[in-house]
Amino acid sequence: MKVFQFNGGRIGVTVGAQSYDLTEALHVDTQAWPPVQMVQFIANIDHNMPGILTHALTKKIDVTTVHLNVPISWPNKLLAFPVNYLAHGVEMKSINRADLNGFFLKANSSLSGPNDAIVLPDLPGREIHHECELGIVIGKGGRHISREDAYKHVFGYACLIDMVVRGKEERVMRKSYDTFCPFGPWITTSDEVPDPGNLQTRLWVNDELRQDANTKDLIVDIPGMIEQCSKVATLYPGDIIAAGTPAGVGPVQRGDRVRIEIQHVGEMTLIVK
Amino acid sequence: MKVFQFNGGRIGVTVGAQSYDLTEALHVDTQAWPPVQMVQFIANIDHNMPGILTHALTKKIDVTTVHLNVPISWPNKLLAFPVNYLAHGVEMKSINRADLNGFFLKANSSLSGPNDAIVLPDLPGREIHHECELGIVIGKGGRHISREDAYKHVFGYACLIDMVVRGKEERVMRKSYDTFCPFGPWITTSDEVPDPGNLQTRLWVNDELRQDANTKDLIVDIPGMIEQCSKVATLYPGDIIAAGTPAGVGPVQRGDRVRIEIQHVGEMTLIVK
Repeated sequence: MKVFQFNGGRIGVTVGAQSYDLTEALHVDTQAWPPVQMVQFIANIDHNMPGILTHALTKKIDVTTVHLNVPISWPNKLLAFPVNYLAHGVEMKSINRADLNGFFLKANSSLSGPNDAIVLPDLPGREIHHECELGIVIGKGGRHISREDAYKHVFGYACLIDMVVRGKEERVMRKSYDTFCPFGPWITTSDEVPDPGNLQTRLWVNDELRQDANTKDLIVDIPGMIEQCSKVATLYPGDIIAAGTPAGVGPVQRGDRVRIEIQHVGEMTLIVK
Repeated sequence: MKVFQFNGGRIGVTVGAQSYDLTEALHVDTQAWPPVQMVQFIANIDHNMPGILTHALTKKIDVTTVHLNVPISWPNKLLAFPVNYLAHGVEMKSINRADLNGFFLKANSSLSGPNDAIVLPDLPGREIHHECELGIVIGKGGRHISREDAYKHVFGYACLIDMVVRGKEERVMRKSYDTFCPFGPWITTSDEVPDPGNLQTRLWVNDELRQDANTKDLIVDIPGMIEQCSKVATLYPGDIIAAGTPAGVGPVQRGDRVRIEIQHVGEMTLIVK
């Protein structure tokens, strides 16, 4: 199943070839603020899903005609792993490594959707780089989750681009500009991803393939990331973990088109402004 | 006015010597998840406050008899400034400085309340330090907020302890353990703080005064922090900025009592477990 948010706060799913608008059937308040509708949907999915597709208020929709928004915009937290592919560590001349250093955070407010532009801040002379990443969405929360149980806590996966201004200031700040975390275009639930530890992830700038790697080369794998994050912090439904970028990061300019594609998960193209 | 959350999701205020329970008058859903009740209260305060104290459903309460919870538990983000007092930079032998390096983040899930223990993770041989900080709560959100307008965006202030495991891993992770951000005991609204740029902030471990400084010695002052954060990220009502710690940080042990007091704002004592 693919889960998406559309037309401002509405919640939809795609099952097989058919998409559905669940907004009315689930009594989703599209005007609610802060926008935690999807976080609530994920938390309640086991309770809500049985029978929902045939509910009298569920409507069939054509997903190609709606405006997709970022599927999660106000999680509890947006965690991210640094240098989680060896080749990226080499290109960055970094002494960091995800298995030694653990995670950092990006601001929730950096999340943006598949139809939102990446807006570059006005920082003359500074390089702003794309980082192609798998986004892991937590379903069932918890603390001290073991490697063995980790996949039971995954709701699904999405494409995630971790944008960053290169430089010497706090990395968290350089990665937290508004629109610096394109995420989407939907969340593909874990049952539709045959092996999350073997997903080809690719990123193009305009027509140039810049990043091309496989999650089998992650230093800390998905169960390891969930174990490590939850050793420190309680994970909540809707929390997002950015898995780290492979080699091939590089600058983008205004007018570029950035395309990300993750096997079995989805693809989206963002305009840089 | 002091604004607090109590008895699990209820919202109260203290005006002068009298406290009030506004939960029913404001139709606050105490069971709502995620717990964004206070964020919503702050966003709607101008609309809701007139007349609320005399509303038929507002109840007078004795704040000394209720169980205070953390006043904000699920903001959009919890921002923090590193090395924002010169003397702390010296004691840490740090090359960082808030005016050069900007902010980082702590996980929302590290927030805990005035009646919650600071729970030390089981990390034998590692020092876990207290950092005494002023917490600044954003009222009206915005991006690109100027120094001149900054104070108009402040809702209020609270005591904040930025706990951290010393070491070489990602600092954000070392500061994001559950209960590593005691915050409270309430939010004192900005109209009750005569000069936020001149607040004595003190922290004791057991009966030993460990930190004793004044916000007039901040490297980046409050308007500067709001300007810098909002250059990068849209600020939302309920966002929290941890202003940075003065000198005097040091280790705590299980069984310690940590007391923080900020002039005109409040004080609270936490047990270390």
